Amino acid sequence: MSTSIDFDTGFFGRLRAAAGDEWTGYVSHPFVRALGTGSLPEACFRRFLVQDYLFLTQFARAYGLSVYKSTNLADIRAAAAGVEAVLAEIPLHVGYCAGWGLDEASMAAEPEAPETMTYTRYVSDVGHTGDILDLTVALMPCVAGYAEVGQLLLADPATVLDGSPYGAWLRNYDSEEYKTSVRTALDKLEDLSRRYGGEARFESLSRIFLTATRLETAFWQMGLDAARPEPR
Amino acid sequence: MSTSIDFDTGFFGRLRAAAGDEWTGYVSHPFVRALGTGSLPEACFRRFLVQDYLFLTQFARAYGLSVYKSTNLADIRAAAAGVEAVLAEIPLHVGYCAGWGLDEASMAAEPEAPETMTYTRYVSDVGHTGDILDLTVALMPCVAGYAEVGQLLLADPATVLDGSPYGAWLRNYDSEEYKTSVRTALDKLEDLSRRYGGEARFESLSRIFLTATRLETAFWQMGLDAARPEPR
Amino acid sequence: MSTSIDFDTGFFGRLRAAAGDEWTGYVSHPFVRALGTGSLPEACFRRFLVQDYLFLTQFARAYGLSVYKSTNLADIRAAAAGVEAVLAEIPLHVGYCAGWGLDEASMAAEPEAPETMTYTRYVSDVGHTGDILDLTVALMPCVAGYAEVGQLLLADPATVLDGSPYGAWLRNYDSEEYKTSVRTALDKLEDLSRRYGGEARFESLSRIFLTATRLETAFWQMGLDAARPEPR
Amino acid sequence: MSTSIDFDTGFFGRLRAAAGDEWTGYVSHPFVRALGTGSLPEACFRRFLVQDYLFLTQFARAYGLSVYKSTNLADIRAAAAGVEAVLAEIPLHVGYCAGWGLDEASMAAEPEAPETMTYTRYVSDVGHTGDILDLTVALMPCVAGYAEVGQLLLADPATVLDGSPYGAWLRNYDSEEYKTSVRTALDKLEDLSRRYGGEARFESLSRIFLTATRLETAFWQMGLDAARPEPR
Repeated sequence: MSTSIDFDTGFFGRLRAAAGDEWTGYVSHPFVRALGTGSLPEACFRRFLVQDYLFLTQFARAYGLSVYKSTNLADIRAAAAGVEAVLAEIPLHVGYCAGWGLDEASMAAEPEAPETMTYTRYVSDVGHTGDILDLTVALMPCVAGYAEVGQLLLADPATVLDGSPYGAWLRNYDSEEYKTSVRTALDKLEDLSRRYGGEARFESLSRIFLTATRLETAFWQMGLDAARPEPR
Repeated sequence: MSTSIDFDTGFFGRLRAAAGDEWTGYVSHPFVRALGTGSLPEACFRRFLVQDYLFLTQFARAYGLSVYKSTNLADIRAAAAGVEAVLAEIPLHVGYCAGWGLDEASMAAEPEAPETMTYTRYVSDVGHTGDILDLTVALMPCVAGYAEVGQLLLADPATVLDGSPYGAWLRNYDSEEYKTSVRTALDKLEDLSRRYGGEARFESLSRIFLTATRLETAFWQMGLDAARPEPR
Repeated sequence: MSTSIDFDTGFFGRLRAAAGDEWTGYVSHPFVRALGTGSLPEACFRRFLVQDYLFLTQFARAYGLSVYKSTNLADIRAAAAGVEAVLAEIPLHVGYCAGWGLDEASMAAEPEAPETMTYTRYVSDVGHTGDILDLTVALMPCVAGYAEVGQLLLADPATVLDGSPYGAWLRNYDSEEYKTSVRTALDKLEDLSRRYGGEARFESLSRIFLTATRLETAFWQMGLDAARPEPR
Repeated sequence: MSTSIDFDTGFFGRLRAAAGDEWTGYVSHPFVRALGTGSLPEACFRRFLVQDYLFLTQFARAYGLSVYKSTNLADIRAAAAGVEAVLAEIPLHVGYCAGWGLDEASMAAEPEAPETMTYTRYVSDVGHTGDILDLTVALMPCVAGYAEVGQLLLADPATVLDGSPYGAWLRNYDSEEYKTSVRTALDKLEDLSRRYGGEARFESLSRIFLTATRLETAFWQMGLDAARPEPR
């Protein structure tokens, strides 16, 4: 496909390669595969949608932090566009959730799952501990990972769109606007990695990326666990 | 005037009253009065315009920090609107500066004056030390002070608009859009002061407001000093 | 006992009361009760010891943040004493762990459990979002909770000290030096709550305290889960 | 002298060389030279002592921030030693100031000079914007610059120790304990520059170092200005 995104190259490609099986385990998690085939129990998806709503609020805060951590206007504008993109996504997400019988007030009143808290507060802590490159790397498993999941599923013959309850959700990942936003984020990472010594700091950045990837995997698992009887 | 802003009431009114003569000294600084009558030397205004450009970059970062420090969507949206407002003001400021022979590249290359650094980094430090109410209070002398200056000058019979080199700049402060943004900021402060214990913390918030007022006064003085021979 | 600590009074008492059953569930968690009777599987305690080692590093960082967030010398000295206390505890903890066959290098190499990350990064995020009172409240379930656990167990006739593998650990909580440090922390909270509008902000502080209490409970549960077969 | 510190080598040496004349202007500022010969008006030194007291409080906070920004125990311990060193210096400074008729309460009540605020809040902002290497670089003109000033003056035949009101102050810089602490700080910078990609980020770190050097120079000038009639 001419418009597919290349996740193998550049600084992102290096981080992704270094995460190895952990990355593969994240983008092809059982939650994701069941989403593609349409076999995911609806309780799992609903759990995911609610926590994703709570996640987006924290995600907007993280981009706000990267506005602060920017030191020139171009970086500030890019980070501010990230805030705006998340804030624009929230009403779309809420509208979509309404179709699943979930209203905004009750989603906002739901407690954050531990998995939601762990990833979002880890990102916040990395952001405050390090610089804008550290923060950006911590956000990438979310930003690029969802795009890769979408691209993988849409290219997979096992994926069911028509007739699946998840078809509309999956089709979102095929919009040019969405893909452009992901490419812009990958370019920004490339740019930051050059200006902030990414190569020289590869080992510690790679640890951040790997940890964030694990926490995203746990987020999928949290969705999946909604269909299992409580183990305790 | 039916549309004038009331700076005397509410939590802002209390902070302003507590700052007393320091507030009056800020909003009726010699720089401001000379701006109104048109007698300000152009070198002073040019100095002010360049440093104000550099100031706006830091100001956008401060609003980015308040996006992060927000804990609900309404506050995040309000803070993000602050980021966007500053980012929208920059090209207007640049366009205006062009009329004074100042191009963006040379303004961006100019070193920040100590007065620009002191206020902006003080705001940043207050923001990181305290919560969103502390940060908002540190920003208010800028947000509301410029509006009060504009309102005072536009109501002052000594003010010259037509034929003054500063007439166009002064008229900006008369737009309904601008006044609405200032009223929104005053309302936000009121709201935050209620939710974050503003009354109980009045003394320390008042100290922040007073310090920020002094640093804004020093910013006007920095402009005025551009017309004086270097004392050293 | 004349030297027992009173957890019912003051600002801490109010936070604790507001946390209700969640607080009781934390300080009398099955992990804690099994620790007292000596029936806790050793694998659980070992898991706890390793994660507690990793926790202490993050805890020292949190006190470092509260040094920064202090605005007068007395607060800075109190927070710095917190950093020093944690740093002094680490070699004691390491020495104790050696008796359980755990060496420092392998503990440091162990990945942080999600439960360790969630609580520590939540504290960090609260600290950056709010002021020193918010941060201190987020730390209290750890600081005061362990002391209350110790006091409860040492007063409980069901508790076994002699002959229990956990007797030495439990006796730590009976030292006057330890109790003094806890009383100092409770006094500091009282002082900060007065100076930073604690009453006016009680609702949001109470939410922080409750969330931190839940995350501490999850930390005990993480220890307990070490004895269960993996549910996945 | 066998125990002199080498400021020319390593990562610090590169930053110092890049700062060129600005560095020389700082370490051989007229305030410094007059201090050496004993010709500095006492009002200047008194102004310096009071502001240095206020500076130390902010300096302790900055080291607190570097405790937080550390990600391993060795770095945490080094940063915590920085906090402790500053806190230990304060009573010595207060004791010394008493000899000049300055008591702690009145120094603490004195407003921070703009020059004190600019440097300390700049350091804070750099610390929050960047990582621990950025923060450390922002602190180096203070940490190493005072040591170089001391070493230069003590080696300068023009320097008067006996009979000068500043002799005791200058002799402080000759203690082995002090020099060891400075060498430790230089070694820490070297270590951090290796682990955090210092070479790859040299340009931006050099800008931070240069700005901090200028702000330290302004701090000396603030002292010197105490002997001049107010220019306004």
